[in-house]
Parts: sequence; structure tokens; C-alpha cells
Amino acid sequence: MKAFKFGKLAVLLATSAMLCSSTPVFAQTAKASDSVNTQSLAAEETAKIRLTRKSAAYWQVTFNNPPLNIIGPAEVRELVKILERIEADPKVKVVVFDSTVPGFFIAHYDLLKPLEDSTGMEPGPTGMHPVPDLMVRLSRLKAVTIVSIRGRASGIGSELALAADMRFASSENAVLSQFEVGAGFVPGGGPMAYLPRLVGRGRALEILIGADDFNGELAERYGYVNRALPDAELDRFVDALATRIASFDQHAIVETKKLVDRASMPPQEEMQPGWDAFITSVQRPAAQARVKALVEKGLQRPGDVEKNLGQYTAKYQE
Amino acid sequence: MKAFKFGKLAVLLATSAMLCSSTPVFAQTAKASDSVNTQSLAAEETAKIRLTRKSAAYWQVTFNNPPLNIIGPAEVRELVKILERIEADPKVKVVVFDSTVPGFFIAHYDLLKPLEDSTGMEPGPTGMHPVPDLMVRLSRLKAVTIVSIRGRASGIGSELALAADMRFASSENAVLSQFEVGAGFVPGGGPMAYLPRLVGRGRALEILIGADDFNGELAERYGYVNRALPDAELDRFVDALATRIASFDQHAIVETKKLVDRASMPPQEEMQPGWDAFITSVQRPAAQARVKALVEKGLQRPGDVEKNLGQYTAKYQE
Amino acid sequence: MKAFKFGKLAVLLATSAMLCSSTPVFAQTAKASDSVNTQSLAAEETAKIRLTRKSAAYWQVTFNNPPLNIIGPAEVRELVKILERIEADPKVKVVVFDSTVPGFFIAHYDLLKPLEDSTGMEPGPTGMHPVPDLMVRLSRLKAVTIVSIRGRASGIGSELALAADMRFASSENAVLSQFEVGAGFVPGGGPMAYLPRLVGRGRALEILIGADDFNGELAERYGYVNRALPDAELDRFVDALATRIASFDQHAIVETKKLVDRASMPPQEEMQPGWDAFITSVQRPAAQARVKALVEKGLQRPGDVEKNLGQYTAKYQE
Repeated sequence: MKAFKFGKLAVLLATSAMLCSSTPVFAQTAKASDSVNTQSLAAEETAKIRLTRKSAAYWQVTFNNPPLNIIGPAEVRELVKILERIEADPKVKVVVFDSTVPGFFIAHYDLLKPLEDSTGMEPGPTGMHPVPDLMVRLSRLKAVTIVSIRGRASGIGSELALAADMRFASSENAVLSQFEVGAGFVPGGGPMAYLPRLVGRGRALEILIGADDFNGELAERYGYVNRALPDAELDRFVDALATRIASFDQHAIVETKKLVDRASMPPQEEMQPGWDAFITSVQRPAAQARVKALVEKGLQRPGDVEKNLGQYTAKYQE
Repeated sequence: MKAFKFGKLAVLLATSAMLCSSTPVFAQTAKASDSVNTQSLAAEETAKIRLTRKSAAYWQVTFNNPPLNIIGPAEVRELVKILERIEADPKVKVVVFDSTVPGFFIAHYDLLKPLEDSTGMEPGPTGMHPVPDLMVRLSRLKAVTIVSIRGRASGIGSELALAADMRFASSENAVLSQFEVGAGFVPGGGPMAYLPRLVGRGRALEILIGADDFNGELAERYGYVNRALPDAELDRFVDALATRIASFDQHAIVETKKLVDRASMPPQEEMQPGWDAFITSVQRPAAQARVKALVEKGLQRPGDVEKNLGQYTAKYQE
Repeated sequence: MKAFKFGKLAVLLATSAMLCSSTPVFAQTAKASDSVNTQSLAAEETAKIRLTRKSAAYWQVTFNNPPLNIIGPAEVRELVKILERIEADPKVKVVVFDSTVPGFFIAHYDLLKPLEDSTGMEPGPTGMHPVPDLMVRLSRLKAVTIVSIRGRASGIGSELALAADMRFASSENAVLSQFEVGAGFVPGGGPMAYLPRLVGRGRALEILIGADDFNGELAERYGYVNRALPDAELDRFVDALATRIASFDQHAIVETKKLVDRASMPPQEEMQPGWDAFITSVQRPAAQARVKALVEKGLQRPGDVEKNLGQYTAKYQE
């Protein structure tokens, strides 16, 4: 495997390992899950990310990795395989992304895996690291992508939602956030490219640097999501919209999307710098100390820290 | 008359004519209305598009073509003539666009005229087909343009509203939509250029590809219109705003608008590709079949299809 | 002192002076306040613009120039000095801007000082006139800037808010406006560059050319401010957000902001043309007559004109 900027990072990792002896952040290993059986993706109820073909034209991708729907290198690889299927299929017109996990759409990126598991991943077809590669390819799919957010969508959960075409949130039960600056590092999945173009520079800076939780209703007012809907109506609304689009002519969909993208797609060139800023920043002692403090309080385990992440990032004392 | 891409389209039209023998879409002829008496525009109460000079500085353009305010090649030519008057006048500062037709601002482009009536039109001064030419010149007027939307503004009705400077809608009685993708073709009047820059990529994709009806209140929340106002207040509000602007100094208006446009005018280069995508897509069998089915159900005649167009586009069975 | 485009303006000033014999607009002199004691800025309760270091990371800039918080050349110089301190400080992470003056955040630019006091100012480090220079440098600070708006923020008050990173307004007591076109001239502090990128072209044209007052609630709906908050909660909210950001890691803040700015910062090249358009337009007889009429009714003095500026600009009779 060709290491991604391996030389530089190996050095930095040595530093961060020394700083984090009791609760190593980005330093526990769980390689077993890396060998994903791609054959089983469509069928298995037990898949961490489940692909359901509701019809030839309407597919569903369901995050099913309790208790928090954490996304790490293994899940990124699963998502890339699903993305390849969507890219390769000539008939799919619309894909809905949702979650089976109560309280969580996607909590955030895996902060307990060794960082080299992330940095060592081979670049994707865009030439970028698989995380920005995934985001860009998700945005550029011919199929229309709709994200249905119930529960927390923080960090890479928010970033996946932003890279998709449309976002709908539960008024009562959605929480969106880019918590990263609150934990001492720069978000890596491209929200600095996507958010300002959706909500304007002022609200983007508040979301990204205030780094606090946004409920569905406020996310709608800001334009962070298309619309917030009463929780009891969310599934029916998203399904009706997807069914509707699946019934339309593919040529008309694809050509229309192409021209919308010409007017408004964030330039790909802004994505890799965001990932690089994440990797650089997360290895700094300041970030390591903040993440360590959050992990000690309960980050990446079910409980109050994950539920009220916006409050906990502000409690750090230098 | 110099045909616009005539060679290619003649071939495609032959194909579409064969497919649509019972209800020819874009294939009935009504050339009488093409000879517009431009002299009468300002005065005649019976003009399909009525130009009223409320004062030297404040003009009004009223769509008055019942029962649906359909815009076809003849009406485009009328609009172009009105546009030329606005362009040529040194004193007009503000132009309000509204409708006298109950229930309709502008239903949509004429889908029953022969397509060659549209494709055969001579390019406008921008070098583009008269429809994108009209939109670009509308946006670039020195005069400020305000659209008052009561009733349905679909397709080219929505596109005219987007190309104007400001849009206000009746909370109770406005319906905006880009229904085209639901009818199997790409919108031709530039909404892929205008909408993403007003409402962001996510909401633009929902409007354009979901292709459903938006009421005034939701249109405001999305930024599709400046503001929705109670129906009883709409006329007074728009008139007060226009009167206000008409009282201001023209130099200040023009120079301010110039700098706003430098920051935010959609590039003209995005407009002709949208029109070309419309012409290509509308001739495909998939679009011809969908439009034919809609026409058979009542499209372009008063009744439920035009009132609830968003519902009917989703009812098509392949 | 090196004059800023002095030759041309001297001629134009001669013209305007002749037109405004009874109430000279931009023509009274008060040079005393030009010599600002920069040493005292931080400490003095009596400073017109007060800099308070609430902590090493959290600073506050308070406009304290009753009765209207007018900003003229002298106050621009004070602001530039404060800006230089923020730029030079390695530790400050967040700066809140607010006002002590009841009813006014900042009324507008000083319209009673001689215009040459403004045009004669030496260019700032960006090479631009100090007003656009100030706006650009405010936007490009490494520190996060938050504006808390209670009372009227018109003209340069609105422009400072737009050039800052985030804006929060009192629901009950904030009034935002770009009144300039209503007074016959083009706004000079860059809102044509900032507003369309925050609120879209349609709403920007309404704000800038309608030139009317926007209350906090409507400003939020338009995206003119991040959020409107009940007056009783505004200070606590802004303080909590600033305290929160001040507790975060500076590297993460700065690198995140850099990438947001890459995606959404208005280009500096649009700022000087706005200032030039202001200077040119404000010297025209039409503007001089309108400003003179407003001054005669009470502009730049406490009273109804300043409170309801949007109404008074529309009352001018040519």
C-alpha cells in the first residue's frame, strides 16, 4: 500500500503518541473490519452500511453501525464501494441516505483509530485522499442524492450531507454540527467549500468556528438543510420526493443537474487543502489534548458527550 | 428568416412528429398572432402584454393573455419589443411586471406550437436565441425590475421572475415551479444559472429536479422570492416600492446596480447551453410522450392540470 | 498629506460648494478630533471608540460617540488604529463590536464634514482609500469578528457589520439599512460586494436600491444578519459565543477561516470601485440637493429623521 504523505506523518504520529499515553487518540488498531465483503453489501441486514435497491431507479443507503454510526477508514472503504456501484449503474436516478441508529445519523469520524490508518489510504480516482475523493464523487454522481437526517449529523456526517444534493432534517430530532474547531482541529471533509456557498460566509463561519449544535429548525433558517420537517412526516416526505424523481426521465434529470453544477458546484481544488488542514491540525498537541479530554469524558461512546457534543467542546480548560 | 440550428432540428422534428400523431406537441400552427402591432402596445387594453407608463420613471408590464398567460414565440416577440422600449428610454427607473389573469402569472411556455416556430427565431442582439436573449437583457436593464406574482408562475413564468431584479409573491395565491423535468425536458430560460445563486445548490436542485409546486411562503423561506406578502397587501407593497425607487436619483440607482451585478450576475455564457439543452431534450421521445400525456389530461387548457401541475407530472406511467 | 485623487475632486467640490451655500453638506470643519491619542484607547471611558480587552483572546470594540455614533474621517482613523492593534496581537481570537449609544449602533458616515477631509486621506496598506481599506482588513483579520446590532446600523454601520464575520441583531431594537441610494448617492463601504454574496442578488438589490429600513427579524429572514435575538438575550448570546470561540484553539480557528474565505471572501478588487462610485455620486447636484433637504429636516441630529430615515429619503420632491 502506498502511504499517503507517510514520511511526514510518521514523524508527527510519534510526537502525538508520546503526548497521549493514557488515552491514545487515533492510535488503537482494529484492522479486522478492513476486509469488507463487497458481495454481501446489498443483501445483508447486518452490513454497517446497507445498500437497498428499492427499484432499478431508486436506491437507499442506510447507515447501520450502532451505537453511533462512526465512520472510520473501514467505513470509508465500504462507502466508496457503494459509490462505485452507483457510479457504474446506468439506471439509478435517485439515492436516499438515512440511518437505522436511534439518535445518530453519523456521529463523526473515528477518532480512536491510528491516524496512519487514515493517512495511509491510497488516493481515489480524483487523485485525492479517499475522504475528499468520496465527497467530490458523491457530489458529481449522475444520480440525485437526498440525505434524510434524524439524530446527530456531526463532522463527517454533516460533511456527507453537505456533499449530497439535498438535505432534509427532522425538526425535533436532528442535530447538525461541525464540532471540529471545538475539538482543536480543522474539519477535513470539505465543509469550508460547501457551507459558505449554501448559507453565506457569515453563517458558515458561525457554524464552523462557533462549532456548536444546530437543531433542524435553525438549520433550515440558515439554509444548512433544504427543509426541516416534523419527525413523523420526514420519512414519508423524503420517500415521496425520491419516488417522484425516480419516475422522471433520466436524461432531463442529468442534463439539468449538469447545468446547476456548472453554476454552483464547489471547485474540486478546495477539497484536498481541507483534508490536509485536518491532518495537520489534528496532530498538533493542542488538538490531541482536547480530543483526549473529550474521550476521557465519553467521546465516541454512547452517553451525554455524544448527545451534547456542542456543550462539551466548550468545557475544555487549557 | 434565418433558421436557428434549423438543419439538426428539422431531422429531430420529423422524429417527434411521427411519435405524436394524435396530439402533436409543439406541432399545431397559429401564425396569425405573430404579426404584433407594436404601435398599439402602450395603449390597447386588449394587448396580450400591456405596457403602461404610470409615470416617466415608473412603467408597468401586465400579462393579459387569458386564460393561462401562455408565452410562445409571438409573446416572446412582444416582450422583446417592450424590452427595447425600456432599453431605449432614458427616464424609466423601475418596471413592475404583473398579471390580470386570475390564477396565473404565466402558466408556462407554449407547448402546442410547432417547435420550429421557436427554433426558427432569429437570434437577438446578444447572439443568443430570443428566449435566453430576453432573459439576459431583462437582467441587464438599467431600470430596476420588480415581479409581482399572484397565481401560477411555472416554467418561463418562473424564469422571467428569476431574471428580473426582485420578486414578491402572494402568500395565499402564488405558486412557483420549474415543472419541466417532471414533463421530461430541461428548463430552457436559464433557471439553472439563476436559482443556485439565489437559493444555493441544494434548494435549486430540489426546485429544478423535484420539479414540484412551491407556494409563496415556502418560496420565501428558500429565497426563491424576496418576500411573500398577504395577498391583500401585495399590490400596495409592490406599488409603494416602485414609487419609492422611481423617486430616487437615476445615477445612484444605475451605478449601484452595476456593482451588485459585478458581484452576482449569472454569466451570460451559461444561458445558451440551457436553451440548447431544452431544445434537445424536448424533442426526445421520452419528453414527447410525457408532454402528450399531460396534454391529453388537460395541459394548456383551463382546469385541474394547470392548477395542480406538480401533481400531474408525477402521475406519468412509462 | 498626499491628496487622494485630489485634482479631480477639488474641481467637483467647487461645484458642490456653490450649490450648498445655506447648509453646506460635507463642508463644515472640525479638525480637532483628528489627533487621536492612541495611547488612551484601551483605557479611556470617554473614547469615541473604546477598546476593551476582556481577556487576552477576547476583545471588545464599543462605539461610544453619542448621540448618533456618526463615523467620519477622524473615527475612521481611530478604527484603523484599533484594527492595527488587533492585526498585531498574536493572542486575540475574537472581537465583538457593539455600541453604548441608545438607539444607534452607527447612524451613518459623517455627511457634514468637508468632503476633502474624506478624499484627502492617505491610502491604507491595501493601496485603497482608508474606508475600503478598513473594510477589507476587517474581513481579513485572523481574529473572528462578531457584530452585535442594537439600534440603527445604516450606511457605514451596515457596511462594517457586513465586512465583519458574523452579525447578530436585536429582534425589537435593530434597524439595518443602506439608505444611500435614497439620499442620491452610491454606498461607499462595499455593500455591493458583500450583500449579494450573503443574501442573493434579488434581496441585495431590494436592500440597496429600495434603500429602506430592515428590522432585525426581516434582516434574519433575508440573511442580512446571522440571526435576530430577543433584545434581552442578545448580549448574553453574543458574549457566550465570543467566550466559546475564545476558548478554542487558535490554529484551528485561523486555518478554518482561511478556507472559508477562499470559498467566499468578496474579491478586494470590487471595493475601491464602490468607494469611487460613492465619491463621484455624492458630489453630483442631485445628491447634494437630496442630502441638503435631509439635513434641513434634521439629518445628523437626534430626532425623527435619524430614527425613521427610510421614510424621509422617500419624501424628497425634485
